[in-house]
Amino acid sequence: MSTICAIATSYGGAIGIIRVSGAESISITEKIFKGNRSLAELTGYEMCHGYIMDEETIVDEVIVSKFVSPNSYTGEDSVEISCHGSIYILNKVLQLLIEHGCRQATPGEFTKRAFLNGKMDLSQAEAVADVISAENKASHDVALSQMKGGISNELAQMREQLIHIASLLELELDFSEEDVEFANRAELQSLITSLDRQIMSLIVSFRKGKAIKDGVPVIIVGKTNVGKSTLLNRLLDDERAIVSDVHGTTRDLIEDTTTINDVSFRFIDTAGLRKTDDVVENIGIRRTYDRLSQAMLVLWVIDETPSRDEIDEMRKQCEGKSVILVINKTDIRQVQNATPFPAVSISAQYDESLQPLENMIFKTAIGETNTMTDVIVSNQRHYDILLRAKESVENISSGIHSNLPSELIAEDLKNTIHILAEITGGEITSTDVLESIFSQFCIGK
Amino acid sequence: MSTICAIATSYGGAIGIIRVSGAESISITEKIFKGNRSLAELTGYEMCHGYIMDEETIVDEVIVSKFVSPNSYTGEDSVEISCHGSIYILNKVLQLLIEHGCRQATPGEFTKRAFLNGKMDLSQAEAVADVISAENKASHDVALSQMKGGISNELAQMREQLIHIASLLELELDFSEEDVEFANRAELQSLITSLDRQIMSLIVSFRKGKAIKDGVPVIIVGKTNVGKSTLLNRLLDDERAIVSDVHGTTRDLIEDTTTINDVSFRFIDTAGLRKTDDVVENIGIRRTYDRLSQAMLVLWVIDETPSRDEIDEMRKQCEGKSVILVINKTDIRQVQNATPFPAVSISAQYDESLQPLENMIFKTAIGETNTMTDVIVSNQRHYDILLRAKESVENISSGIHSNLPSELIAEDLKNTIHILAEITGGEITSTDVLESIFSQFCIGK
Repeated sequence: MSTICAIATSYGGAIGIIRVSGAESISITEKIFKGNRSLAELTGYEMCHGYIMDEETIVDEVIVSKFVSPNSYTGEDSVEISCHGSIYILNKVLQLLIEHGCRQATPGEFTKRAFLNGKMDLSQAEAVADVISAENKASHDVALSQMKGGISNELAQMREQLIHIASLLELELDFSEEDVEFANRAELQSLITSLDRQIMSLIVSFRKGKAIKDGVPVIIVGKTNVGKSTLLNRLLDDERAIVSDVHGTTRDLIEDTTTINDVSFRFIDTAGLRKTDDVVENIGIRRTYDRLSQAMLVLWVIDETPSRDEIDEMRKQCEGKSVILVINKTDIRQVQNATPFPAVSISAQYDESLQPLENMIFKTAIGETNTMTDVIVSNQRHYDILLRAKESVENISSGIHSNLPSELIAEDLKNTIHILAEITGGEITSTDVLESIFSQFCIGK
Repeated sequence: MSTICAIATSYGGAIGIIRVSGAESISITEKIFKGNRSLAELTGYEMCHGYIMDEETIVDEVIVSKFVSPNSYTGEDSVEISCHGSIYILNKVLQLLIEHGCRQATPGEFTKRAFLNGKMDLSQAEAVADVISAENKASHDVALSQMKGGISNELAQMREQLIHIASLLELELDFSEEDVEFANRAELQSLITSLDRQIMSLIVSFRKGKAIKDGVPVIIVGKTNVGKSTLLNRLLDDERAIVSDVHGTTRDLIEDTTTINDVSFRFIDTAGLRKTDDVVENIGIRRTYDRLSQAMLVLWVIDETPSRDEIDEMRKQCEGKSVILVINKTDIRQVQNATPFPAVSISAQYDESLQPLENMIFKTAIGETNTMTDVIVSNQRHYDILLRAKESVENISSGIHSNLPSELIAEDLKNTIHILAEITGGEITSTDVLESIFSQFCIGK
């Protein structure tokens, strides 16, 4: 395995870090380093002050940290060079390392090696990229829980149950000539049902996980002049100060995003809806319905009771989405909720706080706050695997129902175990799959 | 002195570093850190793996590095927390440190403390910011030489000479009643002349230093259709590949910048110059002359011999600037240089390489490459101090000439010593000056 190197920090900070990992990381770094001690002398988790040299020329004053296999991120011998964070220095040090025998790391290669060396399983490795890109508490917590083995532990329990069931069945197979039925079919069925429920709850959590990870797209629709833009501004302004504390730089780019209870919501304002013969206006309205498809949640703003037709149209357009009816302008008139949707009455203009609406938005998209401690799936690959696992479990279940021979049920059990193992990578040997997972990482991780 | 903390890396890298410095840095970090060892146990230059905790919640898995006074960047007890480079984590860790007693560092405050604790002098401290912002080898080398004490050493020598002269004079003062003249006036004058020459060479180097640090603005002028834009494109394209190796991201922003021998040149194309009655065109031409004032170097492109009037106008407009006459279109006709400016003949369109022109541009702006090892002043503050020092040295010189009493000459000598000491900060006590110097730093350095 070659020794790899990469710049692990962004340009432009006070400090820049270059990472080196592999059997030769210490000897290669030694070639370009002049310190008050030799790197070979250092123990793991020790640092040394000195200079990176381009032959006789000083490139920078640095601190080198040494990590000895297996006690490093990758599990290999590793070095971190902490230098001044200039573009020139970082590139120059990288270039020197490459000249002396390192290879530039591919995206995610350090984490891939950590996985291959058994430092973490695949779902944990995948979470590392999510931890780095998390911009708020909710997405960070979901990613960190996964990195700390949240899903892995849940899967390990399921695997144990599956293996237990399989062993019962196999015992039966061993004694099949004696026609013993060790595995009580009713008990089997109950175990399988419980497993199916666990998988289903993980599958269901993906909606929440994806919302937390990517932010929740919320579309604001309604007739013209019902106060959609006022509402949008209120929703954004109330939280903007908090957003800017955390992430000032991108505020201007995604200026219609805000956070409610640490989760990102992306609010999309739309053209007003009304029946019209104006061709151009109709295009705008059609576009509004098109954008509905991208939303997870619809805020339908009204200031008078909608007609039967309007309600029917909205139900049709918003099938499969959550709709909240926002009854606006309570300062002018009171309107009753005549729709099947949950409703909040507000005055977007005069209410001091829109907390009740925000609470309902959060609850509808994410659920109760206190359920955040559950294991949440936020990774599309895991979700796809879970769907396949569920299918496989259903096969077991119907096999038991239709009294299939134990051999066939055992096959389905093994299949389920194999499928679930793909999440933690226990049985993944295909380089292609690994490549595609780690290529989504940033370089240096 | 309070304990300070700051994020020392840019957001978005794989790794993020938070720096803590001050007497309480270790005890405060300990409060939010759960490691396999206690930080108090660690010796300086040792690291420890563990978790940053927000009470019972894990914020991130980190490595903490410990530095013990005086063996740290600031000279104080210091800690560096290496975590995942996410915006959320970096801000959260910073917030926790502040909650537990740290203060957010002001820009440059770590380096300011390094200066105040005698880890480096002021000119070295100032160079740190330049090292971090250096984008090419030349600016990096100038900054690094200053950081390693290049100017400080030169100044230390001058100071020694000045003190030697002062001591000669003071001996004379001590024995003044006996009317002895220990200090030979001719010898004094010769020492002062040599000092004046040294200061002058530093002053002169500022032109080069500023050019290397900020890039050299080069303006391309000439009549319409003499090939100015072709020349610009050739100058940029030839080097663009090299630029992108080092600094791909800003290429699109400053797309008229290129490097020659590792120095940045900013090429500015202009409207063609010609006598015209067209009002709008005359505005363009006036603008060209306005931009001349920002240039350090003028490339005057011609394809036929300019008239006497044109040459006179160019001399007038370019007073105090370096002008290179670029005789273009050698593939069509040969034009002799009838101007007082140095000239290069080229075919911007057909020449395989514009090396001779690039060499002349470099030589005119920067000088010979092999003089790069001299001490170069690149800091405006130092330049201003050197100008004042020169004035003061001239006072000494004229004092000797006009046989001023030794007491007065001694006063001027002391004054020169004081002025020069401002560069290394030996005699700076004003907080305002220090504030203004360090406020130009990035946070975390």
